[in-house]
Amino acid sequence: MKQTAPAEAISRKYPEWIVFVVTRDAAGKPNIMPAGWAMICSGNPLMVCVAIGHSRYTHKCIEQTGEFVFAWAGENQASLVEYSGSHSGAEENKFEKFSIPTAQPSVINVPLLAEAAANLECKVHQAITTGDHTIFVGEVVAAHVPDPPIRKLDNFAGNYCVALPEKS
Amino acid sequence: MKQTAPAEAISRKYPEWIVFVVTRDAAGKPNIMPAGWAMICSGNPLMVCVAIGHSRYTHKCIEQTGEFVFAWAGENQASLVEYSGSHSGAEENKFEKFSIPTAQPSVINVPLLAEAAANLECKVHQAITTGDHTIFVGEVVAAHVPDPPIRKLDNFAGNYCVALPEKS
Repeated sequence: MKQTAPAEAISRKYPEWIVFVVTRDAAGKPNIMPAGWAMICSGNPLMVCVAIGHSRYTHKCIEQTGEFVFAWAGENQASLVEYSGSHSGAEENKFEKFSIPTAQPSVINVPLLAEAAANLECKVHQAITTGDHTIFVGEVVAAHVPDPPIRKLDNFAGNYCVALPEKS
Repeated sequence: MKQTAPAEAISRKYPEWIVFVVTRDAAGKPNIMPAGWAMICSGNPLMVCVAIGHSRYTHKCIEQTGEFVFAWAGENQASLVEYSGSHSGAEENKFEKFSIPTAQPSVINVPLLAEAAANLECKVHQAITTGDHTIFVGEVVAAHVPDPPIRKLDNFAGNYCVALPEKS
């Protein structure tokens, strides 16, 4: 074990899961970004959270509406990860530009992703500033899965693909 | 896309990474637990966080000392995941019982895991109650990696093994 720069240690984290954070702004325009910094943070009640950079349009959307969808990326969404992670929703409607397939939510007013591995509808419970990000904690108010199931996509340091166990 | 019980949606999350949370209690006894509910939450300064159940001994340890090691599990630590996740540090010293190989930290007073994929020394910056868990946010004050590298272990719904990309 050798001491090293934090960046080198962080580079050992892969594969990392990919969570799409779907929102709407105050005017109703939908937005989407991929996040790796996302986790479950309560079992009962069920809550999840995402850490969003202060400058992101998604940050503004969540502040404005208090709602988001937390969706694990599905195996056919690699190009959407790249597109939505490299364009800002401040300047365009990514759902129209990329023709993203959606499904209807049941509680909040944010579209679900038809091709995700799972969708969780969330209402913001808390927002905590941590350094250059905000952790938005959301209570899960509804959940949706594709039928038949869609395999999850993971991030192998920029190679987005399905993760298989070495031994099963 | 069909609406479903949150538990079914959550079951689509795998593979999930495994982070060991290493601590000491006020008396100096080291402790360790595996957590999937862990993420990075700031880039500058670098911060990570873990969601720990209120009843866990690790929760008490972090409250007492304000320090923890955040370590991604390495490929030879599957049995340690099982052991440390099914025994409480309130009743035993898991490091002695399981003869866990350690390495010296450089800043905090918590042992590093010699067989982990990476170790981050953390000082608690914030503690936020979310439902039945507390999110402990830690600022990374030192980082260590094994040389040569050790591959990361992931959790495939209870099958702990290395995750390989389906396409490379």
